[in-house]
Amino acid sequence: MNQEQESLYVSRTDLAVEIQEELREHTPLDGILVRTKVDRQKGIKETVITVENEKGEKALLKPKGTYITIEGEDLSSSDESYHKTMCHALFCHLKKLLKGYEHILVAGLGNQEVTPDALGPYVVSNLAITRHLKKENLLEQGVTLSAISPGVMAQTGMETGEIIKALVKEIHPDVIVAVDALAARSSERLNKTIQISDTGISPGSGVGNHRKEITKKTMGVKVIAVGVPTVIAVPTIVNDALEMLLQALGESRLQKSYEEFTEQEKFQLAREILAPDLADMYVTPKNIDEGVKKISYTISEAFNKLVGLDQIQA
Amino acid sequence: MNQEQESLYVSRTDLAVEIQEELREHTPLDGILVRTKVDRQKGIKETVITVENEKGEKALLKPKGTYITIEGEDLSSSDESYHKTMCHALFCHLKKLLKGYEHILVAGLGNQEVTPDALGPYVVSNLAITRHLKKENLLEQGVTLSAISPGVMAQTGMETGEIIKALVKEIHPDVIVAVDALAARSSERLNKTIQISDTGISPGSGVGNHRKEITKKTMGVKVIAVGVPTVIAVPTIVNDALEMLLQALGESRLQKSYEEFTEQEKFQLAREILAPDLADMYVTPKNIDEGVKKISYTISEAFNKLVGLDQIQA
Amino acid sequence: MNQEQESLYVSRTDLAVEIQEELREHTPLDGILVRTKVDRQKGIKETVITVENEKGEKALLKPKGTYITIEGEDLSSSDESYHKTMCHALFCHLKKLLKGYEHILVAGLGNQEVTPDALGPYVVSNLAITRHLKKENLLEQGVTLSAISPGVMAQTGMETGEIIKALVKEIHPDVIVAVDALAARSSERLNKTIQISDTGISPGSGVGNHRKEITKKTMGVKVIAVGVPTVIAVPTIVNDALEMLLQALGESRLQKSYEEFTEQEKFQLAREILAPDLADMYVTPKNIDEGVKKISYTISEAFNKLVGLDQIQA
Amino acid sequence: MNQEQESLYVSRTDLAVEIQEELREHTPLDGILVRTKVDRQKGIKETVITVENEKGEKALLKPKGTYITIEGEDLSSSDESYHKTMCHALFCHLKKLLKGYEHILVAGLGNQEVTPDALGPYVVSNLAITRHLKKENLLEQGVTLSAISPGVMAQTGMETGEIIKALVKEIHPDVIVAVDALAARSSERLNKTIQISDTGISPGSGVGNHRKEITKKTMGVKVIAVGVPTVIAVPTIVNDALEMLLQALGESRLQKSYEEFTEQEKFQLAREILAPDLADMYVTPKNIDEGVKKISYTISEAFNKLVGLDQIQA
Repeated sequence: MNQEQESLYVSRTDLAVEIQEELREHTPLDGILVRTKVDRQKGIKETVITVENEKGEKALLKPKGTYITIEGEDLSSSDESYHKTMCHALFCHLKKLLKGYEHILVAGLGNQEVTPDALGPYVVSNLAITRHLKKENLLEQGVTLSAISPGVMAQTGMETGEIIKALVKEIHPDVIVAVDALAARSSERLNKTIQISDTGISPGSGVGNHRKEITKKTMGVKVIAVGVPTVIAVPTIVNDALEMLLQALGESRLQKSYEEFTEQEKFQLAREILAPDLADMYVTPKNIDEGVKKISYTISEAFNKLVGLDQIQA
Repeated sequence: MNQEQESLYVSRTDLAVEIQEELREHTPLDGILVRTKVDRQKGIKETVITVENEKGEKALLKPKGTYITIEGEDLSSSDESYHKTMCHALFCHLKKLLKGYEHILVAGLGNQEVTPDALGPYVVSNLAITRHLKKENLLEQGVTLSAISPGVMAQTGMETGEIIKALVKEIHPDVIVAVDALAARSSERLNKTIQISDTGISPGSGVGNHRKEITKKTMGVKVIAVGVPTVIAVPTIVNDALEMLLQALGESRLQKSYEEFTEQEKFQLAREILAPDLADMYVTPKNIDEGVKKISYTISEAFNKLVGLDQIQA
Repeated sequence: MNQEQESLYVSRTDLAVEIQEELREHTPLDGILVRTKVDRQKGIKETVITVENEKGEKALLKPKGTYITIEGEDLSSSDESYHKTMCHALFCHLKKLLKGYEHILVAGLGNQEVTPDALGPYVVSNLAITRHLKKENLLEQGVTLSAISPGVMAQTGMETGEIIKALVKEIHPDVIVAVDALAARSSERLNKTIQISDTGISPGSGVGNHRKEITKKTMGVKVIAVGVPTVIAVPTIVNDALEMLLQALGESRLQKSYEEFTEQEKFQLAREILAPDLADMYVTPKNIDEGVKKISYTISEAFNKLVGLDQIQA
Repeated sequence: MNQEQESLYVSRTDLAVEIQEELREHTPLDGILVRTKVDRQKGIKETVITVENEKGEKALLKPKGTYITIEGEDLSSSDESYHKTMCHALFCHLKKLLKGYEHILVAGLGNQEVTPDALGPYVVSNLAITRHLKKENLLEQGVTLSAISPGVMAQTGMETGEIIKALVKEIHPDVIVAVDALAARSSERLNKTIQISDTGISPGSGVGNHRKEITKKTMGVKVIAVGVPTVIAVPTIVNDALEMLLQALGESRLQKSYEEFTEQEKFQLAREILAPDLADMYVTPKNIDEGVKKISYTISEAFNKLVGLDQIQA
């Protein structure tokens, strides 16, 4: 990976929709296509961002491909029915993206022992797995679903990507769906927004900082990424606070000079001034357990619908 | 609780030793006695802070009483033997503080489902409980140990203090030891420092924001608090970053005007400029699971030594 | 509790429906009323057993009161929709039994760390608790729900009943619902049958062998018990195996003399011949984790319907 | 695997020492070498059983190789110091068996969600993993340790052996240590006995019934198995109870005819008379959580000593 590419991925958010929102304030977007669909009745909003070329890659700091975001129209007022709607929307996207694939391996990335990083393992623990049933002819219809929670490097001594690649070579899935916890900019989006992309997992994204990329290039089969923001990066918080503080202090001169920085430069500045060990820290809500459990169950159920073994719609 | 007292407890850290460090930079401390003991060979440092009167209370933002901090001399280089030394030091302090008490109720405050808030429940889960054995004459010697992990309000609908008070009335312990996760200012101290105080739990302290105080006044029996910082409050991070940023930007004029604020005023400022939902968030390291597990085990073992049933020293 | 009563509760099963099935083979049942309702379309069977007087108590080995069992019509073929039906049936019974009560305290008995004994704690962890919201006027409608997972004596040093009684005195619920894992005779019923009774928890029942009774008499408020069989007692297995073995060996003479024993005598015999430490053991299926998780969720959702905050029916 | 071999592994216990004890009662043992070493002071007993040839294989129902058992001299009186002694003994055996191997992959077999099957995952969760540190030159000395908790087939859709084999091909360990929960005959041995063998995991052994063998033949590298009995098989209990019952009933004639069966025939008989779904059940003590946690920690610490990063001896 060359240096230019590396810089691509230093961002304050893993959500394409948030990067695009930031960019929109400054410049017209070349190479990036954005379509938004709002269902007022269901209170749900879907944004499909397509990064069409290298220009788009550089602007959005994300590799070429499609990034779908599902979220509530009004994030602050999401009630219980919200999850049922989200589940159905995710199911529809997965169905389209996974059409024609026979055997799906779901990889639940992250550390089960750390609540905001446990999204992937939680999703895997609720899946209706079918590979072993189909192999032994105990089940005929539906897709073949296998799954792994590979753990994190401190627990295994292995890169997440090493483990998944090893399994790909052994059991030959047709497609991988990697489920991972993400970082967002907006606290309102935490545990309420699902991002689906056909580009796989890029280095540096995710709560757990999985170092190797998990993409078609490295895995040999297509990789779909499903992510939910569960944390905010420390530099993001510092940044946002700083902007507001300068405003509050009425330091219009300083404010202007700060505003001349790009988002990325601001993020880098915040990173540099923070104590180095803060780089390995994250900001998370106090009720993270509830939030992660609910959205994990929503995601599992979307997969189980795909297999025809979901519980909610039974 | 009157308003003046309330303001006492709005601080960037729950550690008396950190508040005292901050204060020392500005003013001589009236009503606060500080003794420090360093054991070079064991690499351990103990600080005993005594808040002697109301003046001290106002300065340190903590109620009258004794605050003992046990930490490594060099926090960055704590190896495995560190925990054994910490365990012994905590045991010695507990032995002195709990001398003459027959029945100890350990209350493990916090939410087991949220890693940085799980310190209390983790400690309780490793205790060698003896009350039931002594009641049935299966054990003769040693103190009577009972314990509860009361959970958090969202799980029970009850204040932590309500549950503990109910148990005090029913089983009549002679003393309560409340174990809780704290917020610190310094990231280096996270999961490495133990604070013991004879003042109980004050409102607003702790990761989980237990609202009612748990003190002799409310419980009817003496309350010892044992705490470990596992998180940093978001305004603290923002504050520290801001100071460094102003320095980095060479804004000496602004820096000076900022320095004129007291620590408390700075903290309040940061709180006000942050989005309101960030007030319910915290900053925590990525390897929080390991850190909390290790220090929890260290604390449990100090209690088990007291009972004569510890594993490490067996 | 006098000795006669004590012997009442030594049985091979905690399910009234199984004791009644055994008895029916031998004698007509005096003082016991049995009504069965089968819903073919939903595939569900409800049995309501009323113990009317002391005669019934002695025969059924259960205190006077009503015992409702909800189970699948055909236990071997329960599919996913089964849980939705169970949930609705449980909701209807709870609604009737809890009518007029304002504040319900759910007590999740058992040990969260031991899978087949974790039913109670699992149910509590999925409840939509409202007491704190109603106290702070954040919620107006619906019943007041509070909950506790008191843990087991080895973890707390306290009887489960002591903890619950202490809370009753402190927060004054109008009714307690005690959720507990039970022992059954039939392996087919494990994790598939729900028993609801208005008699509370009697000593000796349940997986965890909670010693003190939790009834209106001891708690001061009405106690509803909701239980699910998750294990089989070791003597039960031995008994059943013995009967079949004698049959298989063609030992008709021995078979006859064995059949002359009452169920209770057989159970006592098996208990006596087994090594004493086997009395503290139980038999449980290998996939106990799935089974307990599913039925726990079903029970939680029935409570959440009551509160108006369930997820499935949203 | 041919049919004759298959029958080899149907036994009431996974512990070589228990099979040997049973056999000793009947016949002299050809092809089986037994050495026992008792350390009175430490209260520990080590039994080394060597299966030398096919005769020994048939008699012991175990493949050729060495089976080491570490257990307390007096199983009923094991106090806390017991675990320290066990840890040291296991460390010594591992050191000898793993001498010359550079990279060790520890595989924690079993289901983390089912307490008596969680031994393997628990051991893995406490290991001081070094592979990633050595790869990045953050650690120089000591062996390379990597680890995986592969989960069970119902969670992944994959055989445990498939996952481990895939990792062997990808990361090339020199040796695998498979840690697994076992079934024993004696309830006294549960959670107190460690068996180490150089033959790997054979089909049918273990609590979780992992179907494919994990041996040098299937994995390509040497496989050491470390196991602890945590359950008793249902037929074993039934068998033992039956023998005692016949004795209690004074049925000497029947007793004699039953005694003419071999241990294996008795086990098969019990299996056949039991309801088929009881074959998937096991017997486990009520305090299984404590027992499994303690012995898991003991095993982890023996590995950590090997790496030079243990906590107890620090």
